[in-house]
Parts: sequence; structure tokens; C-alpha cells
Amino acid sequence: MSDPILYAHSQRERYLSELQAFLRIPSVSTQPEHDADTAVAAQWLADLLRAAGLENVQLIPTAGHPLVYADWLHAGSGAPTVLIYGHYDVQPAEPFELWYTPPFEPVVRDEYVYARGASDNKGQIFAHVKGVEALLQANGRLPVNVKFIVEGEEESGGASLAAFIPQHKTMLAANVALVSDSAILSPEQPAIVYGLRGICYLYLDVTGPARDLHSGSFGGGINNPLNALAHIIARLKDEEGHILIPGFYDRVRPLSAEERAILAQFPLDEAAWLAESGAPQAWGEPEYTLVERLGARPTLDVHGIIGGYTGPGGKTVLPASVHAKLSMRLVPDQDPEEIRHLFTQYVHSITPPSVRVTISGGHGAPASITDYRIPAMQAARAAYREAFGREPVLMREGGSIPVVGQFQQHLGMETVLMGLGLPGDRIHSPNERFYLPNFYRGIEASIHFLQRYASLA
Amino acid sequence: MSDPILYAHSQRERYLSELQAFLRIPSVSTQPEHDADTAVAAQWLADLLRAAGLENVQLIPTAGHPLVYADWLHAGSGAPTVLIYGHYDVQPAEPFELWYTPPFEPVVRDEYVYARGASDNKGQIFAHVKGVEALLQANGRLPVNVKFIVEGEEESGGASLAAFIPQHKTMLAANVALVSDSAILSPEQPAIVYGLRGICYLYLDVTGPARDLHSGSFGGGINNPLNALAHIIARLKDEEGHILIPGFYDRVRPLSAEERAILAQFPLDEAAWLAESGAPQAWGEPEYTLVERLGARPTLDVHGIIGGYTGPGGKTVLPASVHAKLSMRLVPDQDPEEIRHLFTQYVHSITPPSVRVTISGGHGAPASITDYRIPAMQAARAAYREAFGREPVLMREGGSIPVVGQFQQHLGMETVLMGLGLPGDRIHSPNERFYLPNFYRGIEASIHFLQRYASLA
Repeated sequence: MSDPILYAHSQRERYLSELQAFLRIPSVSTQPEHDADTAVAAQWLADLLRAAGLENVQLIPTAGHPLVYADWLHAGSGAPTVLIYGHYDVQPAEPFELWYTPPFEPVVRDEYVYARGASDNKGQIFAHVKGVEALLQANGRLPVNVKFIVEGEEESGGASLAAFIPQHKTMLAANVALVSDSAILSPEQPAIVYGLRGICYLYLDVTGPARDLHSGSFGGGINNPLNALAHIIARLKDEEGHILIPGFYDRVRPLSAEERAILAQFPLDEAAWLAESGAPQAWGEPEYTLVERLGARPTLDVHGIIGGYTGPGGKTVLPASVHAKLSMRLVPDQDPEEIRHLFTQYVHSITPPSVRVTISGGHGAPASITDYRIPAMQAARAAYREAFGREPVLMREGGSIPVVGQFQQHLGMETVLMGLGLPGDRIHSPNERFYLPNFYRGIEASIHFLQRYASLA
Repeated sequence: MSDPILYAHSQRERYLSELQAFLRIPSVSTQPEHDADTAVAAQWLADLLRAAGLENVQLIPTAGHPLVYADWLHAGSGAPTVLIYGHYDVQPAEPFELWYTPPFEPVVRDEYVYARGASDNKGQIFAHVKGVEALLQANGRLPVNVKFIVEGEEESGGASLAAFIPQHKTMLAANVALVSDSAILSPEQPAIVYGLRGICYLYLDVTGPARDLHSGSFGGGINNPLNALAHIIARLKDEEGHILIPGFYDRVRPLSAEERAILAQFPLDEAAWLAESGAPQAWGEPEYTLVERLGARPTLDVHGIIGGYTGPGGKTVLPASVHAKLSMRLVPDQDPEEIRHLFTQYVHSITPPSVRVTISGGHGAPASITDYRIPAMQAARAAYREAFGREPVLMREGGSIPVVGQFQQHLGMETVLMGLGLPGDRIHSPNERFYLPNFYRGIEASIHFLQRYASLA
């Protein structure tokens, strides 16, 4: 037996080189032209898990991209089991022209590795692969049983894993789930996310005339789908951020005074946060603090609109149709299916008969909250203290990790969200990056977590 | 001397073949990749004018695409001069996939020739080229002096001709302008347009964050430029079609009871018109008739929007920016520059400080009205009667022909709009077409007009 922390330290160069190889694979799950790349990423990860000493390594075929599974289950009777989750797929890299270096040619600059997926989620899941490898290489065993489940559709809705979980409860059974797919506040201030927003993602098409019409000949006598879309969107959310869909807030669990006090302690540097966003000013529901608006309040945002003539110069058409993508971020206890129903009903009710609307897609996931008093939460706090040298703060995160709700619902399992990213990682944006000191500390935190959890659980 | 009408009849096959050659040239003035094609179209037209017997044929260079000029000025002292205007450029043909046959490979089907520009404006201007040619070939002379001015930027703002007119008043001087760039009601019902709407075309950009942001991490705390654009557009025009910009209607000349009575006689088949549009129903200001809304009332329409992620599948971004193209159709006596100012002022006043707007472009032209009692109008009515066998109706057209206002303003010249298109010609749309019987009757109407005008003026 040797020290896994020392072992991990000695392997940093190899770990970085392997992470860069992982980042070179353009596993964009939402774009069919990258299907083959996504399959390559799954196989590559499976090979690395096997090399790390994991057992039962397998690619599980699905209707979409395969799941990668591996385990090590020899910790002995009475030892708890940890299910480590992550995803090997990445967001689309568009718009390419805004990247300083190509998104799938990782480069290291100023202690960051730059690439699509560096932080979300390849760098973060890889820290656990390497934490487990260090324990197995140094000690020949793990202090707890470990299962890995890594999906390839997190950025495109996660349908395959969502279908898999309820049908494979024994295979995935564990005492707690461990997920690193979020951000801490700074390299000096770790954070544990105890709440996540859910999501309801939809496509909205508005159609009018059968084809693009001359706006001189028909203008004034035909409702324009682009103008009609604007009226619909404007009636979904007011200019202060209040969502206007009847019933939308009915199931929102009110923030307790205790929780508002916890969130008020969260050390958000609003000026730095705003500078990071590049927006002219912060914005949102005036009756809530910025921290509350970002993590504990639901939202409605349009993600894309395309319609009519969008080439160079002008063209005077009444467009036949327009396509919009939008989502609502949800909080406990909103139900994505009910929200989709309320949205659909409301949009139909405000759409005039002079145009037609079609609502379709997308995907949904409920919000989730984890009780921060459970042993795995204590183990995570200790692991952060040891790896980062500081007590983590508690926070609610605005993003959605749908699998957390699914673990809760089908496996009765709480999830510990031990983020390793930073707020400036530009996930989903051009020039995504991952802070390498967090990668190395993350490997150590993974080791500490498994050791601590063995003694606390 | 022989009969120019009989001569024109004998040449129909050649005329059609020449028109198809003209239509094969993709002279899309608004798309830089077609600049060379647009130059080819100008040269081709100049060659045809020379072959028709016109004199002083020249390509006049401009900051944009060249003007084509030609004349024949030997009608004798006291004979009036007619300035024939048209344009050799065409609208973009996108979306290509909706064309049944390629837009620049003209085909004849059921007495229509299908191609981009067939009706707007190559087929219509070509009828006058051939009318003049028939007179010159049959008689060796014209009954009046004729000047042609044909531009290549009508579909992209017409800036070069607009700059040329005030500086070349003598060159362009004439007693009346003759323009065929509009539609009659049906092959059996010709029409004279005595009023045209003006236009004010603008680009609107809304920007927020410095780059696309993750909508989970930042949603609720940052104003989304797509949502903000929807609020701005929704506040430009209400859902019944009333424009909400303060002062917008101040200079609108009220419709007199007499003119409303004339317009009420216009034989619009609303059901056929609606079927032609393909829209679910007619729409617009409830206090005006459809005929009034289409020609005698101002409008505001969005022509294109693009912003955020518009590829396949979903992406959860708060987009950095969104681009919209829009225009307002104007009626007498609205001033395009004043309208642009009112629009700009209002949009800035309703834009919250959480996003930024930029208003730029595009082009403007005032509306115009021609007195239908002048001799050239009587000549046009007679020409339609002789060529089409029926008295034309009077109408106001919803489109804009900016040059008509410029002729009025700088040359003190009225314009006769002797349209040859049909409402179903799909100008600016896929599968644009031109009805060949109208082409041949148009050539005859051009001959009759010049002969009648010689005796009336």
C-alpha cells in the first residue's frame, strides 16, 4: 500500500495528456454528423476505465448513444456503494468563428485547458476516473464499492439513460450518487450544490401564408408570423422577468426564511459576475436577490429564432413561418409535463386565428434538492477541505442535471454534487476551458471523498 | 409603313426566346456573389436596346450597378417625350428548395414562363423594349420621343439611380414617365395604379451578454436579447395592426369619402385573394376595408429574424445578440426620414438598459399619387382597352416604386403605372412566373400607348 495522493501527483503529466486525447473527440451528441465521433468517445472512455482497474466494463447500446458502465465491488460486506455519474458528450461548438483556437484541438494556456467539453463534462468526470485509478494503483483496492455510469446524451436530452434507469435498478443500485458537473465559486472557494433547477425545453413554430409573400402586395392584409411570434413571446414573460403563463407558479415551493438566509450568505461578487457575463447590467425579478434569481427561481428564455430572410441586405417578404427554441428552468415542485401542458394551452389561447402555432419537442426534467445533512454530504465537505484547503459553501445551481431527479425517483438515491468547474469556464460558449489545478485537486477530492465516505456511511 | 401590331405578332417566338435568355442571367443585386451576373444583365439589355433601333445606348457606371440608358428623339417639334423606366435586377431566389424548377432556368408551362424576375421586372420592361422595337421596325420611327432608363438596384434600395436623377435632369427630362412594374387584376381586367406606398426599411440589432451564455447558470439574472426583441417588436404594432410609434400617423392624409367610394368599387375577390396567399384568414385594422389596408394604409412588418442557436436539436444558451430586418410601408404624406427618426426615438425609449439596440440601414422612399385625369392616364386607359379589350379599373398598390416619387420630386414628372403582372405571379416568392398572353398584350399596349399619347398630349 502506498499513498494514492502521492501516486496521483506523480501521474499528472499522463493524466493531462489523456484528458487532451479525450477532448480531441468531437462527441457532439445533438448533431447527427458527429454520431461516429460520439461512439468513438464512448469506446475510448471504456478503454480508459478498464486500464484504470475497473471491472465489468461495457458499452450498453441504446436507441441513441451508448452508455458506458464499469464497477469495482470488492470493498467487503457492509461497505457502501457509490454510483459515479458523468457524460462524455458535449455541446455543439458553434459559432466556430468566435473560438480563438479550434474547439476540438485542446491547448493549455495560463493553467487552463481550452476545448469544447473541457469543463462540461469531460474534465470533471475524468477526475473521478483518475481518483479511482490512483486508489486502485496505490492500494490495490477501493475503500467503498464504486459503479460508473457515463452517458452520451446529456446535452441532447438524456432520453436513453432516462429509459434505462427504471429498468436496471439492481445494476445501478448504490447508497449515494456522486456527480461533478457544476462549478465552485473560485479555486479558493469550493461549493456544494444542494439544489438544481429542472427544465422544460420546447420548439415553437408559427406559420402564416403558404409561402413568403411580397410585403407590399400583401402587407396590411395578412398577419405576419414574425410579428405574431413577437406578440406571443412578449406575453410569456413580462419585462421584469415574471412569467405570465397561468398556473406556472402554482407548484413553486416558497423560499423559507431559513433558506433565504443561507442564500444571503453566498459570497457572490456581483460586479465580477456581471463582468464575466458581459451584459450591460444584471436583471430579473426585482423582489428576489440575484442569487435567488439564478438558482431558486424559475425562468423562461428563448434560445434561438430563425425566420424570413436573414441573408445580406434587405428583402421585403411576409415570411411563411418562423421557428423558435425556448425553455423554462423549473424549481421544486414544478412538474415538467404539467408545465408543458400549461405552456401549450396558454400559447394556443393567445394565438390569433390569423396564424397557426405548432409546439413540439424537446425534453424535460424536474428540479431537485438534496438534504445537506446526510453522511455523503459530510464526506464531500471533508474532501473539499482536504483537497482545496477551505470549507465549501452551500448553493443552489441554476442549471439542470436531469439525472439527479431520476436517481431520486427510481433508485431512491440522493446525489452529492461535487463541482470542479469555475464560473468562468464558458460552458456552452465559445472558448470553453477547465482550470487544471481544479483537475488535479478534483482527483484528490475524489480520493478523499471515497475514503471519508467509507468511515462515515 | 406597316402595322406594328401585326409585326409584333409575327415576332412572338423570337421575343419569348430573348426574354428567356434575359431570365437566365441571375442578376440578384443584393447578393455580392451575383455582382458579375448583374453586370452581364446590364450589358445584355443594352445590346438588345441597340438592336431594337434605340440610339445613344450607354451603360452609366455608378457606385453600385450600372444604369442602362437609350433614347430615340426624332419625333419632331412639339412631340412629347416619354421616359420608360424599369429594372434589370431581381430579388434573391432563396429558399431554393421551394422552387419546382431552378429559378434561373426559365421554363414555359400552361402559358406562364417560370423564373426569378419573370414578372418583377424583366418580363414587364421587356414588353416596352419590344413595343418600341415593333414601332421602329414597322414604321421606321416613333410617334413620340422615347427615353429608356433601366436600373440594376431596384431590389436593393435604388441608391444609384436616386443619386443620378437630381444631377441629370436634362438627360432624363420628359413629359411623363411610363412604368410597368405592378399587377393588373386578371388577364380580363386591366388596372391602372394611381397610388403607391412608400417605404422605410431598417435593421434592428439587440445585444446583451458579450457571448452566448449557459441559460442555467445565467438565466434569471441576465436579460435575454431574444426575449427583449420580442417585447420591442410587440410594442411597435398591436395585434390588430395599429402601429404604436408616437407620431407615426400624424402626416397620414385621411382617405376622403370620394376615394373610399372609388376603392369600394374595386372588384377584389377576397376568397380568391386569401387562397392565393395561403394564410388562414385575412387580417388587419378592423376599421378599414381589405382594399384600403392593402394599398392606402401604412404597415409595419418584420422580414427576418436570426439569433441564438438555430441548428438541429436544442441548445440552452442566452444568446449574445439577435438581428432583425423590418420595414414600414408608408402612405402620402409620410416622410421616410421623419418616420425613421420617430422609429429610432421610440425604440430607444422602450429598450431597457439591460440590453443595447442598434438601428441601421436600410433605404427609404416616399409614397406617391398620380392625378388620373392627365392626358397620359387617358392614353393608358385607351391602350388597355385596345390591347386587353376592357376598361381598366383604378387602384392603389401596396408596394413601393421609389423612383416614382423621385421623378415627381426632381423632374416634376407624373408617372403612369401600366402594370402587366398578375396577382398570382409570386414576385419575391419561389416559383415566380409571368403570364405570356400578358407579355404579348403588353407589347401591343406599349405600342397603343405611344400612339395615343402622341395625339392626346
